[in-house]
Amino acid sequence: MTNHNAFTIIPIGIARSPYTQKFGIPRQSGLVPAAKTVIELNPSFSKDAVRGLEEFDYIWVQFIFHATLAEGYSELVRPPRLGGKVKKGVFATRAPHRPNGIGLSLFKLESIEYTQSIVKLHISGSDLLDKTPIIDIKPYLPHLESKPAARGGFTENRFNQLTVSWSPESLKHCPSAEMKIMIEQSLSQDPRPAHQHQLDKIFVMEIEGYEVRFVVEADTVSVLAIHSLNKV
Amino acid sequence: MTNHNAFTIIPIGIARSPYTQKFGIPRQSGLVPAAKTVIELNPSFSKDAVRGLEEFDYIWVQFIFHATLAEGYSELVRPPRLGGKVKKGVFATRAPHRPNGIGLSLFKLESIEYTQSIVKLHISGSDLLDKTPIIDIKPYLPHLESKPAARGGFTENRFNQLTVSWSPESLKHCPSAEMKIMIEQSLSQDPRPAHQHQLDKIFVMEIEGYEVRFVVEADTVSVLAIHSLNKV
Repeated sequence: MTNHNAFTIIPIGIARSPYTQKFGIPRQSGLVPAAKTVIELNPSFSKDAVRGLEEFDYIWVQFIFHATLAEGYSELVRPPRLGGKVKKGVFATRAPHRPNGIGLSLFKLESIEYTQSIVKLHISGSDLLDKTPIIDIKPYLPHLESKPAARGGFTENRFNQLTVSWSPESLKHCPSAEMKIMIEQSLSQDPRPAHQHQLDKIFVMEIEGYEVRFVVEADTVSVLAIHSLNKV
Repeated sequence: MTNHNAFTIIPIGIARSPYTQKFGIPRQSGLVPAAKTVIELNPSFSKDAVRGLEEFDYIWVQFIFHATLAEGYSELVRPPRLGGKVKKGVFATRAPHRPNGIGLSLFKLESIEYTQSIVKLHISGSDLLDKTPIIDIKPYLPHLESKPAARGGFTENRFNQLTVSWSPESLKHCPSAEMKIMIEQSLSQDPRPAHQHQLDKIFVMEIEGYEVRFVVEADTVSVLAIHSLNKV
C-alpha cells in the first residue's frame, strides 16, 4: 500500500531565531511582526535555488517541530485560544504535537542575503524555535491563497491582547528599542499555558539571550526584570 | 548538526483523485473547482482526529509528490506560466521536483464522512494525483493567511484561459454533466508542456477512468474524442 511507505526528509536549512525556548513563542506566525529570524540554507544550495523569490512578499516555510517531536501526539488537543477547555482534533488545529511533526508558517520575506556561500532568508513574524530544521520553502500565491471570507472555525474566537507595562528597573535593562517591541508583542499574546493563570506566578521567558520575568494580572503583563543570560 | 538529521515521514492517508496521470493535473490547487477528491485517513485515525475541522472552509494538505520523487530536483526550474522560457529558483516556485518532494495545496473542504471506521475528507479544487500519500492536514486560518495585497512575483503574470469546444461525437460520449465541467475546467488551464505547442499534436489526458483526446489551436481546445478506459 502506497500510504504505508515511509519517506525520508532531510532538512534544507536551519532557523536562527530569537526564541531559544518553547515558552513565549507566538502561537502562530505573523502575530509578532518584530520577531526576526534568519533561515540559513545548507551550503549545498547556491543562490540559484532562491532566484526570483525576492519578488514575493510572503513565503511558506515548512519545518519540523524538533523540540516536541519525540513527545508524540494525541488525536485530541486543547487549543490555547479556547482557554484549554475544549478539545479539537489534531488535524483541526496547528498544534505542534502532530503526526509527522511538520509545521507550516507564513512569514514576511524581508530580504535575501548571500554571504560566504550561504543563502540567508531574513524573515519577520517568526514563530520558530531557534535551530528549527527547515524542510521546504515556497512562495505565497496571493491570487489563490487569499481567502478573506473563509470560515476560520474556533480561530475566529476573539482574543484580547494584553497590555504590557515595564518596571522602571526592567526598562533600564532592556538592551534596545527593537528588543522592547519584540518582547511587548510577544507578551501581549499571553504566552501563559491555559492551566497556569495564577496571579502570583512569576513567568520566565528566554528571548534573544535575555531572560524576561513577568506576572500577569487581569489584562496587564508586568515585566519585573530582564537580564542577559551571558551566554557568550 | 541539527540540520543534517534525517526525519522519517509516514503518510497519514491517501488521495482518491480523478487524476490518474500527471498530464492534465491543474498546476495549482483551486484552479479546477470541479475536481473532487477524497482524502482517506489511515484506519488508525478515529473521527476524533478531525473534530472541529468542519468549522473551516479550507484546509491545507501536505503531501508527497510520489510520482516524481525519484526524479530528483534541480535548483532552477522553468515555470509553465512563464512559457518555459525563464528560470526561477526551485524555492521560488511550487514545482513538484523539489528537495524532499513535499507538496502544499489549499482545498475547499466540502464534507467529512466517517464510514466503516475510515475518515474521508471530501475536497474540491484538487490538484492531486490519484494515490498521493498525504502527510498532514491543517486548517486554513483566514485572519492570518489572507494577504490579498501581497506581491505574487511571476505568478501575477496574466494567464489566458483557453476556450473548450467539443466535437459532437465526443460530447455524446461524455458520461455526465459533472465530468464535462471538470474536463472543461482542466483543459482551459492549458495542460500542454511549454515546449509542446505544435498545432497538429494530439494530446491524451486520462481522467476519472476516461481518456480524453484533444488538440489546441490559438485559444481553443478542441476535444476530439472521449472513451472509457474500462479498467473495471
